[in-house]
Amino acid sequence: MDNKEISQAVIGRLPRYFRYLGELKDEGIERISSQELSDLMKVTASQIRQDFNNFGGFGQQGYGYKVEYLYEEIGRILGLEKTHNLIIIGAGNLGQALANYMNFERRGFLFKGIFDKNPALYGKKIRNLEIKPMEEMESFVKQNEIDIAVLTIPKGEAAGVAEKLVQNGIRGIWNFAHVDLTVPKNIQVENVHLSDSLMKLAYNINQYESESAGTPERNP
Amino acid sequence: MDNKEISQAVIGRLPRYFRYLGELKDEGIERISSQELSDLMKVTASQIRQDFNNFGGFGQQGYGYKVEYLYEEIGRILGLEKTHNLIIIGAGNLGQALANYMNFERRGFLFKGIFDKNPALYGKKIRNLEIKPMEEMESFVKQNEIDIAVLTIPKGEAAGVAEKLVQNGIRGIWNFAHVDLTVPKNIQVENVHLSDSLMKLAYNINQYESESAGTPERNP
Repeated sequence: MDNKEISQAVIGRLPRYFRYLGELKDEGIERISSQELSDLMKVTASQIRQDFNNFGGFGQQGYGYKVEYLYEEIGRILGLEKTHNLIIIGAGNLGQALANYMNFERRGFLFKGIFDKNPALYGKKIRNLEIKPMEEMESFVKQNEIDIAVLTIPKGEAAGVAEKLVQNGIRGIWNFAHVDLTVPKNIQVENVHLSDSLMKLAYNINQYESESAGTPERNP
Repeated sequence: MDNKEISQAVIGRLPRYFRYLGELKDEGIERISSQELSDLMKVTASQIRQDFNNFGGFGQQGYGYKVEYLYEEIGRILGLEKTHNLIIIGAGNLGQALANYMNFERRGFLFKGIFDKNPALYGKKIRNLEIKPMEEMESFVKQNEIDIAVLTIPKGEAAGVAEKLVQNGIRGIWNFAHVDLTVPKNIQVENVHLSDSLMKLAYNINQYESESAGTPERNP
């Protein structure tokens, strides 16, 4: 199977399919039609068929999809049968929240270390991980085959840290710092810009209300 | 100005424009061409012009955009001159991380309360907010004109809490629970599904490597 041409929009939807199929599987449901899946996920059946066609279709039209097969195939496409070694840079509340989230481990994302520049935190344990000084980050990445770094540090520090990570062989950065990183093409970055998400929510609230009031906003 | 027809994709990009323009403004830059902005933001100049045309264009082609004016206009479109009252449901690490993030307040997002079902946390303070019992959530929402609720609770609890919030007049939900919420049309939901984001990163890492190795993955 050659996934080269798949758009990021489709890729971005795969984890959601995976989540719903996992729940169906847990409920003991063996087959589902694209229409039923459409009703459940609130996307059109045509969108579902188009998305799945990117990967060869997965199923028999009219007969429905085999839930467990589809779940496993999507998991395989997402690479979830592989494990990834992660470190977290920044042991603040957000870093700790992520380190504590057990679900990631079940999907093969193994947290191997957590680093901070604050000496007061050194040695403190987050689950089974001792917070280590930033100075140890680079050698740790190399020695422990870390492939993903999670950045939960202020934006001013993110670029410098990302550069060091790249030099030491990291393959992906999960970036919570509120800045876009410039990295070589072989490094994958996935941003979680929380402020952007909150602003979008506020826009949609304001917009809905100005529409339903029948008084679209005007320039002052 | 009538924003009714603007796609969510465009809306989703506005906060990023806002962020870059804010930084340019802080650096004292007064004008920028769409080409310069394109180089900086790594999107095409044509995309920038198309996005801005949704809102009337903002600028003089060839002459460039006035940074401060554009910054303020986009802020106005995003509704950032308004304030929003927020509560956080779930005082775990993630809830605490969000409560502690000062930048939200600077944008007019005011955290007014934080709730948890764990009695051991009642009365504990996160910045200036005392953690309150879940039982007080509904009356608090009504009495304090809360318009946005942030859900940082397990997925099994999210639907029930969302229903109560809706009944008490909430207008938007910033949902970190790993489940899609079913709410009436007048309620806006913005999801931050962290696992989905991490899976997408893993996919891109795997994909890049199977491509560059020249050995696309095959079915076993």
